[in-house]
Amino acid sequence: MRARDLVTEFPTVSLDTPVLDAARLLADQGLPGLIVVDENGSPRSILPGAQVMRLAVPTYCQDDPALARVVDEAHADTFLRSLAGRTVRECLPENPRELPIADPDATVLEIAALMARTYSPLVAIVEEDRLQGAVTLQVLLDRTLDS
Amino acid sequence: MRARDLVTEFPTVSLDTPVLDAARLLADQGLPGLIVVDENGSPRSILPGAQVMRLAVPTYCQDDPALARVVDEAHADTFLRSLAGRTVRECLPENPRELPIADPDATVLEIAALMARTYSPLVAIVEEDRLQGAVTLQVLLDRTLDS
Repeated sequence: MRARDLVTEFPTVSLDTPVLDAARLLADQGLPGLIVVDENGSPRSILPGAQVMRLAVPTYCQDDPALARVVDEAHADTFLRSLAGRTVRECLPENPRELPIADPDATVLEIAALMARTYSPLVAIVEEDRLQGAVTLQVLLDRTLDS
Repeated sequence: MRARDLVTEFPTVSLDTPVLDAARLLADQGLPGLIVVDENGSPRSILPGAQVMRLAVPTYCQDDPALARVVDEAHADTFLRSLAGRTVRECLPENPRELPIADPDATVLEIAALMARTYSPLVAIVEEDRLQGAVTLQVLLDRTLDS
C-alpha cells in the first residue's frame, strides 16, 4: 500500500482566505486540519487543527496560562473576533516547522512516521508540485488495521 | 462561556487497553485523540491522534525519514502488527509533555490557548480528579464562531 492508494480529496484554503472562513471550514466539515495552497496550487502550509488555534490565540496567552486566565469571560468568548479581516497569510507562523508532505510512492510507514514527527493527523500528497489530496490518520488507521 | 458549557462525553481507554484496540476506537469513532485514564478514572495521558502514531512507529523511523524509506512495502503495510499484545501502558512516552487538562471553570480562551500550546485538538475537563469529559476543537470552534 502506498500513499496513492490512501489519498482522498481534501479541501484547501488559500493564503488570501480570511482566517475566520478557514476556521469555519475546519469546524463545519470536521476536518483534522487545513491545507493552505499558494497561487499555483502548491501546498504552502499544512495546519493540524490544534495549530489553527495558534493563528487565533494571542502568543502571550499561549505561552503563559496565567495570562489567559486573567481575561474575563465576556472577552474570552469573543477572542476570535480579533481575527476579523485577517487572512491566513497574515497569521501563518513565520518559521514553519517541517511540513507533512509526501509523494504518492510513500509507504504507510513513511506516512505514519511523518504524522508522528510533525504531530499532524493529515499528510498532503504532492506530485510534481501539484497537490493530489491528503492521507488522513483515520484513513491510514482504517486501512492498516484491516490489512 | 466556560468549559462546563462545552464539555461532551468522551470515550476513554485504560492503561491496560491493548494499543491496537485503542487505535481501532480512534479510527472507528473518528476521534480527535484518546484520553487514557488510570484505575481511579483520572486522566493519565491525553494523546492527540497524531501522537497515537508515536506509539506505533519505531522511534528510528520517526527521527529519520530515510530509515522509514528503506522498509519495504510489504513490511510497512504491517507495521501495526508489531503492537499486537502490547498495552497502552507499555507504549506511553516516558516523559509526558504538558497535558491538555482544564477545570470546568476555564474560559474558551484558556481552552484554546491550551490546545495551541499542547498541539491537542481535545482538552480533558477534570473536576476534583474526576474526568467530566472533553472539549473538542470542533465544539469550541462551532460555539465560538456562532457567538
